[in-house]
Amino acid sequence: MVNVDTARFLQDLYELRKIGAFKTGAHRPTYSQQDMESRRWLKTKMEEAGLEATIDGIGNVFGRHKGAGPHVLAGSHIETQNEAGWLDGALGVVSALHLARAGLPVDVCAFADEEGHFSGGFIGSRSIIGDFSEADMDASTNRYDGTPLRTALTAAGLEGIPRLQIDPARYKGFFEMHIEQGTQLENAGLQIGVVTGIVAIWQWQLRIAGQQDHAGGTTMAERRDAGLTAVRLLAAIDADFPRICGERSTWTTGNIELSPGAASIIPGRAEVLFQFRDVSMLKLQEMEAALRRLVQESNRRERCHTELIEVHKATPALCDPGTMRALEGAAEALAPGKWQSMPSGAGHDAQNIAKVLPVSMLFVPSIGGISHHWAENTRDEDLEMGMRVLAEGVERYLAGSN
Amino acid sequence: MVNVDTARFLQDLYELRKIGAFKTGAHRPTYSQQDMESRRWLKTKMEEAGLEATIDGIGNVFGRHKGAGPHVLAGSHIETQNEAGWLDGALGVVSALHLARAGLPVDVCAFADEEGHFSGGFIGSRSIIGDFSEADMDASTNRYDGTPLRTALTAAGLEGIPRLQIDPARYKGFFEMHIEQGTQLENAGLQIGVVTGIVAIWQWQLRIAGQQDHAGGTTMAERRDAGLTAVRLLAAIDADFPRICGERSTWTTGNIELSPGAASIIPGRAEVLFQFRDVSMLKLQEMEAALRRLVQESNRRERCHTELIEVHKATPALCDPGTMRALEGAAEALAPGKWQSMPSGAGHDAQNIAKVLPVSMLFVPSIGGISHHWAENTRDEDLEMGMRVLAEGVERYLAGSN
Repeated sequence: MVNVDTARFLQDLYELRKIGAFKTGAHRPTYSQQDMESRRWLKTKMEEAGLEATIDGIGNVFGRHKGAGPHVLAGSHIETQNEAGWLDGALGVVSALHLARAGLPVDVCAFADEEGHFSGGFIGSRSIIGDFSEADMDASTNRYDGTPLRTALTAAGLEGIPRLQIDPARYKGFFEMHIEQGTQLENAGLQIGVVTGIVAIWQWQLRIAGQQDHAGGTTMAERRDAGLTAVRLLAAIDADFPRICGERSTWTTGNIELSPGAASIIPGRAEVLFQFRDVSMLKLQEMEAALRRLVQESNRRERCHTELIEVHKATPALCDPGTMRALEGAAEALAPGKWQSMPSGAGHDAQNIAKVLPVSMLFVPSIGGISHHWAENTRDEDLEMGMRVLAEGVERYLAGSN
Repeated sequence: MVNVDTARFLQDLYELRKIGAFKTGAHRPTYSQQDMESRRWLKTKMEEAGLEATIDGIGNVFGRHKGAGPHVLAGSHIETQNEAGWLDGALGVVSALHLARAGLPVDVCAFADEEGHFSGGFIGSRSIIGDFSEADMDASTNRYDGTPLRTALTAAGLEGIPRLQIDPARYKGFFEMHIEQGTQLENAGLQIGVVTGIVAIWQWQLRIAGQQDHAGGTTMAERRDAGLTAVRLLAAIDADFPRICGERSTWTTGNIELSPGAASIIPGRAEVLFQFRDVSMLKLQEMEAALRRLVQESNRRERCHTELIEVHKATPALCDPGTMRALEGAAEALAPGKWQSMPSGAGHDAQNIAKVLPVSMLFVPSIGGISHHWAENTRDEDLEMGMRVLAEGVERYLAGSN
């Protein structure tokens, strides 16, 4: 059994937490001074672990194992959401580093901007599989302040540095450890989740056109109230989706905007952000069909027309049965009865790597399910258990006993 | 029958439209340069009509008839909403001026800030009945830029000028002509509306507390989605209110705000602006009881608690049967079959004057129901008919033939 120094693993996580510390969390927006400091910190750590380390032209920090294969790739991201948690991303990167430190033939990568500070999405893991073109780079801007990606890269000292691409032939698979960002494990009293797949998000906008009018002068019978059509349609979705959804499907109305949004004015326009997620392509297609039927029915009954706009439709990334078996075996060996299989409701870099390699993910519990907030946390013993199960799983996978 | 020079009446309206002209409408925010210019223009017009004219310390422009009574008071407001119409308010002021010009014993008033550029609401008509204290003046600020009312009055040259109060004993009643701000008259092919009362607005806020969570990591069964509770409650209101509402009740959800309002975050908080209006106090009370029952039921069923917050509850102002009979008689004489009785869905200065005098209002059609927009308009023949019915009604009322 591979030997991991879990104390040193925790110590490295604590050290990284200090870079851009914010309350008990961290603030390291992509390409910020703090973020670049953390990337240089990681490069040094990789070198100490005997890896050949580089920071590439998109900010990916890559540590290449110098020895013979078969290799696996492991990692996650190192930047954070604004004023967010210390483990989201960092856990996957530091655990990957400690796989290498424990002597496993592992290349380690921190993929740039998983958190999406720049438009395009997952630009680091897309770049490394050759799915982020120069034109994509030209088009990408910071979603908070509009800074072009190229300007930010120049300011971070990354201009002109080549971007790395991985050779899938080098790897047997990819591993990413991450916090759960939910309460499934905690509520069930478990320590480990072996991820079956990463759900795809199908994001929609509902745009409803009514007639803006004075709320006093316009009788109920005359109105074309866009807000009310939105409410009735969303209530219909709420009533109907449970009939067609899967066991772990989710659907969410994140925003409703009524225009002009004043107390005494009948809304002339409503815009709704609606999404659903599932790990099954078939289920996603069924939910789309249900949504289209509901919008069609709304347009038959209502005075205000609803336009259904597709914002984006991703493909679910299924985890590889072989990597899953290795992790399940490791979990049962080290934490018997304290683990479960589960889908990931959130997106991760692994979903891009899955396009070229077998991937797997391991979850550890999030205290109270808190995520994308500085209060995010996980118990030390769960972090250590995750590290040990990951190392054992990678060793089993490389040994081919799966 | 009293003789009104309707050509000159229209000419005065056109002249006033030029002050702060905006496209085909007008932009005269309260106490702005354009607004003060219109007040001085009105004062001169009042003097030309033989009235004793003053601008008081809140900006009310008052023209006092010099002859013997019994008198009536007539008027409306002269400032406009931003970039709004040329007739809203102006019509009631200029028509009142022409009552005096036609020789009727009428005091004319343009009440300051009916449009509510300053907080407090209806500060001119409240001041003139003694319902706007010095402390109220201290507290009032511009709702767009925060300027204190007193600072604005000083800038407008009104500081230190006494505020007028009317003596109710001087008047037999109050008359206000106004555009309908709806499409009832237009749709029915009518020229005149005799107003039965001014609805009261009961304005509420619904504040719903849920739990903000990641839309991927949190299963449907774990969620406390404040937005969904809002949607279900508003759908229940939509289903139940038609069972208890009156013939001309209105209810409106003007705004729904979900926090944080992002595509992938379950809303932790929802705030809804909800109001209803009616001219009957009993009906208003029934609607409040229904709303309270629906919120109570929501709180029984839902995981997110809804707090019902009363923002304001006004009292409906019923028009005086005597003044109404005079206007109805005049309407039937001059526009037989072309008028109807109807409530006013919008608020007007008359609702404050109703606290001390018998009041009545006369509506003329709004083309397309457009209001609070520069495109607001009324056909010249409808304006002239309104002026003639108003004058005839005031004459009949003063003659006591009601």
